[in-house]
Amino acid sequence: MSETKPIVLKIGGSVITDKDGELAARTAVINRLSEEIQKARVENLIIVHGGGSFGHPTAKKYGIKEGLREESQKLGFAETHHVMTVLNGLVMDSLVWHNIPAISVAPSCCVVTENGRIKCFNDAILKSYLRMGFAPVLYGDAVLDEKLGFTVLSGDQLVAHLAMKLAASRIVIGVDTDGLYDADPKLSKNAQLYTNLTLAELKKIQDKLDKSTASDVTGGMLGKVSELIPAVEQGIPVTIVNAAKANRVYKALMREAVEGTIIEKE
Amino acid sequence: MSETKPIVLKIGGSVITDKDGELAARTAVINRLSEEIQKARVENLIIVHGGGSFGHPTAKKYGIKEGLREESQKLGFAETHHVMTVLNGLVMDSLVWHNIPAISVAPSCCVVTENGRIKCFNDAILKSYLRMGFAPVLYGDAVLDEKLGFTVLSGDQLVAHLAMKLAASRIVIGVDTDGLYDADPKLSKNAQLYTNLTLAELKKIQDKLDKSTASDVTGGMLGKVSELIPAVEQGIPVTIVNAAKANRVYKALMREAVEGTIIEKE
Repeated sequence: MSETKPIVLKIGGSVITDKDGELAARTAVINRLSEEIQKARVENLIIVHGGGSFGHPTAKKYGIKEGLREESQKLGFAETHHVMTVLNGLVMDSLVWHNIPAISVAPSCCVVTENGRIKCFNDAILKSYLRMGFAPVLYGDAVLDEKLGFTVLSGDQLVAHLAMKLAASRIVIGVDTDGLYDADPKLSKNAQLYTNLTLAELKKIQDKLDKSTASDVTGGMLGKVSELIPAVEQGIPVTIVNAAKANRVYKALMREAVEGTIIEKE
Repeated sequence: MSETKPIVLKIGGSVITDKDGELAARTAVINRLSEEIQKARVENLIIVHGGGSFGHPTAKKYGIKEGLREESQKLGFAETHHVMTVLNGLVMDSLVWHNIPAISVAPSCCVVTENGRIKCFNDAILKSYLRMGFAPVLYGDAVLDEKLGFTVLSGDQLVAHLAMKLAASRIVIGVDTDGLYDADPKLSKNAQLYTNLTLAELKKIQDKLDKSTASDVTGGMLGKVSELIPAVEQGIPVTIVNAAKANRVYKALMREAVEGTIIEKE
C-alpha cells in the first residue's frame, strides 16, 4: 500500500515502433525502457503508450477517429483495437520479464468518450491495482463514443486525464526528440530547445505559432503538449525527454537533471 | 442494433491449447473454430475461452487462486494475466482475420470477485459492444478479489454469470470430449454419454457421484457443469459439444442436431 502520489509515464508510439514499417515494433528499445523503468523502482507508476505504426495506419484506413458511418467499419474498429493489443502485448512481455508487476488496462474496456473527449472512465479497478503496487499500463485505443459511435482515444488525452484524476505528482513524456523546440528539429537545424517553460510562456508560444501558421511547425509536439495543459494548470509538472536515447526516461523518473523540456504552472 | 437474445459460447482451454506443452496454442484448431463461428453468423454472440496450458501452470506456480499472501506473488499475478492475454491475442487474431468484429474484454479490467465469486462486473461497455453488433471475447483470468486480494476467475463461472446477466437464449460449451459421460471417457471405454438431461436428472447424477467418490469421475466435466446450473435454473439451456471435432460447434450454434449433451431446466 503506497501513499506517494503516482507518476504518469507516456512512451510515444514513434519511440517503440518504426513508422516506416507496418506493425514493426522496436523490441530492443522496448526492452531498454523496461530496464530503465525497473531500475527507477517508482512505487506508484502508470504507463501509457502510443500506437505508432500499429494503431495509426489501421485507424486511418477505416476512418475510426471520425466515427461509425457504415457497417464495414466495425471490423476496422475490431482490427484497430486488436493491433493495439498486439503492440501492448510486446510492451507487457518486456515489462513482466523485467520483473515489473505490470497489468494491462485496455481503454476500450473502461473508457467511453463523447465527441472524442473522455466522458466516463471506470477507473475503480485501475486505482485498486495502483494501491496494491501494480503498474497499470494503458494505451491509445479505439473506444466507444456516445455521439460518434466510436472513435480513437489518444494516449496523450489519457495521460492528462489520468494524471488529473489520480492527482499525479508528475507527468513524464518520452518522445523521439529532445523535447519541445521552436521549430521541427527533424527539419530545421536551427530549432531551439525550450528547457523550462511556465504555462504563461507556453501559451505565448502557442499564440505566436497559431498566428504564424496553420500547421504545427514544432513537428506535432505542440499539439501533444496542448493536451497536457489542463494537468499543468492543476499543478502537475510535465517533463518531456527523448525516450529514444538511453537513460533519459530513467533520469526523468528519478528527478535527476536531464536534457529535455520542463513545463510548470509558474 | 439487434433484438435477439445473445448466445454465450465457451471454448475450453484444453481444446485450443496443448496441455503437454507450455504456452502451446493449437492455432489450426483456433482457425477452424473461427471459421465455424464466422459461418454460423450468430447475431449476438459472446465468446469466452479457457486458459489451458497458458493460464493454469502460471497461476498454479504462484498460487494465484489462493490469494495474495506475499509480495512476490504480485509478479505472478501480472504474469498469469499476461500469458492469458497472449492466448487471447492468438484467438483475437484468428477471429478478426475471419472477419468477425470481435473485441477482447479483459476480466481483470472489469470484474472483482469476493472469495472467488463474481461480486462486481462493470458490463456497461460490454453490453454496448453487443448492442452495436460486436462479439465480445472474454477469458478465464487473474482478477482482484475483495477478500483474497486476488484470485483466478474461471471461464465457466464467467459463462454462467454473463448468460444470466444478459438473459442469453443458450449456452454452448465446446470441450475436448463428446459431452458429459457417466465416467471419464478418456479412461473408461464403457463410459456412456448423456445426450439429454433435465436439471432434476443432472442433480441425481451429481448426488450419486458425490456419494460414490471424492473426486470427479467424469474427468472434471461434472465440476464444469455444476458451475452452469444457476443459468439452467433460469431457463437457459446448455449444449455441450466436442469442439476438437469439426462442425460440432457450428451445428450447436445453428441449433442443428449434433452429438453432445443438452441440459435443460425441464
